[in-house]
Amino acid sequence: MTSSQSKPVRQLVVIGLGLIGGSLAAAARRRGICETVIGVVRSDDVGSTAVAMGVVDSATTSLAEIAPGLGEGDVIFVAVPTLSVRKVLEQVRDLVSPAVTVTDGASVKGSVLCDVQAVYGEVPSQIVLGHPIAGSEKSGVTASNPDLYVRHRVILTPTAETGAAHLQRVTALWAGVEAEVLHLSVHEHDEILGATSHLPHAIAFSLVDTLAHDSHNEQIFRYAAGGFRDFTRIASSDSVMWRDIMLANREAVIKAIDLFVANVTRLRQAIQDEDGDTLLHTFERAKTARDHFSKMLAQRSGISIDKE
Amino acid sequence: MTSSQSKPVRQLVVIGLGLIGGSLAAAARRRGICETVIGVVRSDDVGSTAVAMGVVDSATTSLAEIAPGLGEGDVIFVAVPTLSVRKVLEQVRDLVSPAVTVTDGASVKGSVLCDVQAVYGEVPSQIVLGHPIAGSEKSGVTASNPDLYVRHRVILTPTAETGAAHLQRVTALWAGVEAEVLHLSVHEHDEILGATSHLPHAIAFSLVDTLAHDSHNEQIFRYAAGGFRDFTRIASSDSVMWRDIMLANREAVIKAIDLFVANVTRLRQAIQDEDGDTLLHTFERAKTARDHFSKMLAQRSGISIDKE
Repeated sequence: MTSSQSKPVRQLVVIGLGLIGGSLAAAARRRGICETVIGVVRSDDVGSTAVAMGVVDSATTSLAEIAPGLGEGDVIFVAVPTLSVRKVLEQVRDLVSPAVTVTDGASVKGSVLCDVQAVYGEVPSQIVLGHPIAGSEKSGVTASNPDLYVRHRVILTPTAETGAAHLQRVTALWAGVEAEVLHLSVHEHDEILGATSHLPHAIAFSLVDTLAHDSHNEQIFRYAAGGFRDFTRIASSDSVMWRDIMLANREAVIKAIDLFVANVTRLRQAIQDEDGDTLLHTFERAKTARDHFSKMLAQRSGISIDKE
Repeated sequence: MTSSQSKPVRQLVVIGLGLIGGSLAAAARRRGICETVIGVVRSDDVGSTAVAMGVVDSATTSLAEIAPGLGEGDVIFVAVPTLSVRKVLEQVRDLVSPAVTVTDGASVKGSVLCDVQAVYGEVPSQIVLGHPIAGSEKSGVTASNPDLYVRHRVILTPTAETGAAHLQRVTALWAGVEAEVLHLSVHEHDEILGATSHLPHAIAFSLVDTLAHDSHNEQIFRYAAGGFRDFTRIASSDSVMWRDIMLANREAVIKAIDLFVANVTRLRQAIQDEDGDTLLHTFERAKTARDHFSKMLAQRSGISIDKE
């Protein structure tokens, strides 16, 4: 028996229909876990495309237009670039009832928590910060994928202020689109993602940039591929999104870069000194860690977590 | 009409039946481009396995045993780890006729050229250095793959001393296993591979080693995957082989690491300074170079070049 009372979310409002927002909207509609899915978009064109694609039931360019109809049981998902979250939160504060659950999908949580504190002067119980660990090099509403979150992890970072009912509603939303929900503190989230995602992106962008400036430039790209192709794939990711992430997670990223550069510098010194033992031990340690990690992933039988 | 006269190589002797040597032997046998394929191995066990798998026609642990039977039209392929090449060349010098063509598959060419000069006191015309750009994380004779070189590039680095007939014979051998043969100078080869292959391996080993030492170690590996998995795949490569490569191509690798570290350091400074414009331009440049490079690869319609 499916009645509207049994749905975990009444109305789902997604602000920003890019890959992340569009995919949650499409996934929620496809699985019938909300009564209505509404998109808030920057232009009528994006809205028409989203409705035509079946990503949302309806779309608007004005939050003010739909805000009066929102109340308890409804969820707003803020899915705009990290550094644009604050502006959206100001609108939400001015227009939306404190009964409405508000969550987000930004890749850095510390900066969003600061935004919340700056905008509200406190952390309201309606706010549940989160980060779905999924993505691809594709972007925009046309990249919306109703199965993007299946077996992917979503990290929620509740604080002492977070209301239990709000947290429960956001958890039910993500579980309803077949994601695996986990909790971390804001600080842990940013440190861990800084090391596993933001650092590798900084390295990949830097490596490709280094090679593109080398005097052998043409030949370098002619002679490179295979492992190199995998290795640099993430350097094709969206530039604006990554600028925002690097700035928003500034301290953790700098700390991760410093640890990494110190490690590369030790390796360089061992090469310089023709110290084969240190090289061998470093490579063996890395190979063991990598192989152990691959096994862990395999044992998780299909749960995968992407690159952002 | 296939007569033995039409075969590009009479006897092919492969010294070292790992992935690289075993795959050339298996590919040559499968395609019938040599009269006989003989493996020179370290142990009777490897020899028996190679014969049983059909990788070679026969195998021996003693080059001395077969050397008297070798002459013009025969090719020796030295496929041992880079830093073991010199010892093999000493045996070849002592046992093998100057009429026999001698080539290799080591990942660094400058160090092998030095070995040749040290062993022979000159560069004999029979020596043709080369590097098949193919590989995988797998190793050993059981990883032998008769199609490993199909549409892959093989870089030959002939010098002024290289005999035309010897060069022609090695070229015919690689063409016979469906590889694409290209020429570079020894110096160009080492600089280009230093940047496109040895540097990314140094970075991948360093990144995994950095994360394995982080205090969040357990969680880092629990929360990482997707792009991270691709990015660190090459850190599972053979440790001994990579120690040898880093030492053999010491100068070019150090130069490449220095350029890369300078670039990462500039990026770190831009993050520290909250200089969004520099970040955005760097990421856009990298994305453009990476996308251009992907297109180039796609246009090459299937010719791919792997990670070593």
